[in-house]
Amino acid sequence: MSETEVARDLGAAKIGDGPTTDSKEDQQEDVVDPWNVHSSSDTGIDYDKLIVRFGSSKIDRELIDRMEAIIKQPVHHFIRRGLFFSHRDMHTILTAYENKTPFYLYTGRGPSSEAMHLGHLIPFIFTKWLQDVFDVPLVIQMTDDEKFLWKDLSVDETHRLAYENAKDIIACGFDEDKTFIFSDYDYIGSSTDFYKTMCRIQKCVTFNQVKGIFGFDESTSIGKIAFPAIQAAPSFSCAFPQIFGGRQIPCLIPCAIDQDPYFRMTRDVAPRLGLSKPALLHSKFFPALQGARSKMSASDPNSSVFLTDTPKQIKTKINKYAFSGGRDTLEEHRQLGGNCDVDVSFQYLTFFLEDDEKLEKIRQDYSSGELLTGHLKQELIGVLQKIVAEHQARRSQVTEEVVKRFMKPRKLKYNY
Amino acid sequence: MSETEVARDLGAAKIGDGPTTDSKEDQQEDVVDPWNVHSSSDTGIDYDKLIVRFGSSKIDRELIDRMEAIIKQPVHHFIRRGLFFSHRDMHTILTAYENKTPFYLYTGRGPSSEAMHLGHLIPFIFTKWLQDVFDVPLVIQMTDDEKFLWKDLSVDETHRLAYENAKDIIACGFDEDKTFIFSDYDYIGSSTDFYKTMCRIQKCVTFNQVKGIFGFDESTSIGKIAFPAIQAAPSFSCAFPQIFGGRQIPCLIPCAIDQDPYFRMTRDVAPRLGLSKPALLHSKFFPALQGARSKMSASDPNSSVFLTDTPKQIKTKINKYAFSGGRDTLEEHRQLGGNCDVDVSFQYLTFFLEDDEKLEKIRQDYSSGELLTGHLKQELIGVLQKIVAEHQARRSQVTEEVVKRFMKPRKLKYNY
Repeated sequence: MSETEVARDLGAAKIGDGPTTDSKEDQQEDVVDPWNVHSSSDTGIDYDKLIVRFGSSKIDRELIDRMEAIIKQPVHHFIRRGLFFSHRDMHTILTAYENKTPFYLYTGRGPSSEAMHLGHLIPFIFTKWLQDVFDVPLVIQMTDDEKFLWKDLSVDETHRLAYENAKDIIACGFDEDKTFIFSDYDYIGSSTDFYKTMCRIQKCVTFNQVKGIFGFDESTSIGKIAFPAIQAAPSFSCAFPQIFGGRQIPCLIPCAIDQDPYFRMTRDVAPRLGLSKPALLHSKFFPALQGARSKMSASDPNSSVFLTDTPKQIKTKINKYAFSGGRDTLEEHRQLGGNCDVDVSFQYLTFFLEDDEKLEKIRQDYSSGELLTGHLKQELIGVLQKIVAEHQARRSQVTEEVVKRFMKPRKLKYNY
Repeated sequence: MSETEVARDLGAAKIGDGPTTDSKEDQQEDVVDPWNVHSSSDTGIDYDKLIVRFGSSKIDRELIDRMEAIIKQPVHHFIRRGLFFSHRDMHTILTAYENKTPFYLYTGRGPSSEAMHLGHLIPFIFTKWLQDVFDVPLVIQMTDDEKFLWKDLSVDETHRLAYENAKDIIACGFDEDKTFIFSDYDYIGSSTDFYKTMCRIQKCVTFNQVKGIFGFDESTSIGKIAFPAIQAAPSFSCAFPQIFGGRQIPCLIPCAIDQDPYFRMTRDVAPRLGLSKPALLHSKFFPALQGARSKMSASDPNSSVFLTDTPKQIKTKINKYAFSGGRDTLEEHRQLGGNCDVDVSFQYLTFFLEDDEKLEKIRQDYSSGELLTGHLKQELIGVLQKIVAEHQARRSQVTEEVVKRFMKPRKLKYNY
């Protein structure tokens, strides 16, 4: 049975309900697809259920121990804290790595808005860490074509946004010698091998399949219908002969779990093309300020802390909008304690406060009622102001010239 | 109402029945789509009905007179004899031309076999004539990607066939300074503008539309579903800024009428993209040796005279397979005469015997019974042997170097 069939059999019909069916949503089941993430629970998506529905594997103690033994250092706190929680074939990648078989990283971004928000940083922060500890090359796809097809944006605007967003991505600190960032318009229009890889994938996938996986229907544009092959193609090194010097090497994709449908499809197609299935590391969603029922979204400014926000804006947004797990009155809070499971400020700290001991103390103090919501928010505001200011400082150093260098097709450096 | 809607309303449902529904075909209606051409009548497709069904216009006396006044010479015998019989917006092209607004020609070929046959030559012979008399540039699309998607052929094989077939096309005598031949793999993989034009078209067309126009269904691959945008894109000069020096100029497409569905779709999309609708000149089909119920097809070697055939093979095929309109016995033939309307040899002569008087005499003599089938075939064999031998001689001069020059993206020469 294919991976997409497994996902369907396990009750993942919701995954296929697509962008237009929010209203029909079952109150009991989370909606998770590339266009919708929504939970009916205040604690957000039930990620354990999602692993079963999607047919992926949990990142368990055994995998973490193995990773730490190989990289000879602790794993990233995103893994320690279960924020990257699910994987496909990560053991295969580690075995290959132990045998000195190299792999490469692939992640991406749909450039639909000028300003990226904190949630957009998560996969890039994590991917940079993977690049550093495994010392491997990385390709980053800017799906400007996707955003043109899905949004009311022009070709030129989405192309421009790809370059703007690339600056924020570069500001995460990727190694220029080992990182290729590409706009789909530019790279498809400059690589016969990428286009041929797209064609090979497109020949293997039917309308019925993308309908099942992505919830497309008969009124979907033929551009959207064909797009999944474009997001699939970078999973195969044959799409980048000049980048990888013609070597066939396996691929590891760090991404948010909502992108998994694309890669289930990719993994189903791979053996038919005689290619390796990409491995995956899945993250949880970065919650909206309003709470864990939905993820942070750039299209709702009040749900997001942007990377362009001033310290004052950050302070105001957190104080005004961040959903609190605190109690209604001071007395109640002191008596019953705050609820970290629904408290957005606390959840943001799990992403951005690196100090495990400090985080644990905050959790205990807030749960016991000792720490008040105002103080918790104060802690978060400080952390975010620092992260955003540092990001802005690094981004200001990313000139057009630097962007051009990262986006130039060229052979990436390899240590094997 | 859109052009594709007109085509449907006028009873063109058959056009949309697609590649897999031959068996369901209505005995009374001709099947004409990019993958199937079939008539239940010995005299072949009813082209007058097709004009009504497709919503195109007949090439009438008025249009011919106007063309001849502009080009100051007689029109090609393909037009005189009604072999190019239908058009869309040819008057618009002529008016533009009179006003010194240039246009360009676009035609193409799906490279599915090494050897091209006589029928494949028709659009290229006619396109060369148009290029000569109007002195305009020309782009020729080799849809190697299409043949990969539709046939059991590899990417590499279809790419190779594109280059092989380009030699036969070049041998038709196109002006190197004014002709760009491109493989889809190569050009899509080298032109951001072509890919962006594809995206713009794909955003405007839904699955429902390509289902209606091309008969796709839910088991159709997403590659096939998206392909019509790839055949549509060369209709717009913005897909070729380096070829046309960035000028926006109208397009005229000479092609067989079975390709019209692609361009009805293209013409429906054009105004939504703020682009000019391409004009069209449609040809009839070149009949199979077995008769006018179907067109010559490279996949049935006995139905075709190939451009690689020897004089002896041509003689044998015509004598053995060419469906005859002659009578069963010599006596009957002398008394009743032959039927030119169903006689394949006579029909081939209408394509390839340029001398009007001689053709008319053959028609009269055959119809009256004076000329016997054997002699008619003898006449045709001589004509075809000469044409094929001359083609082979010209093709042998087309080196890899020449092919490279024609297929190199470059600015084409213009006289305006």
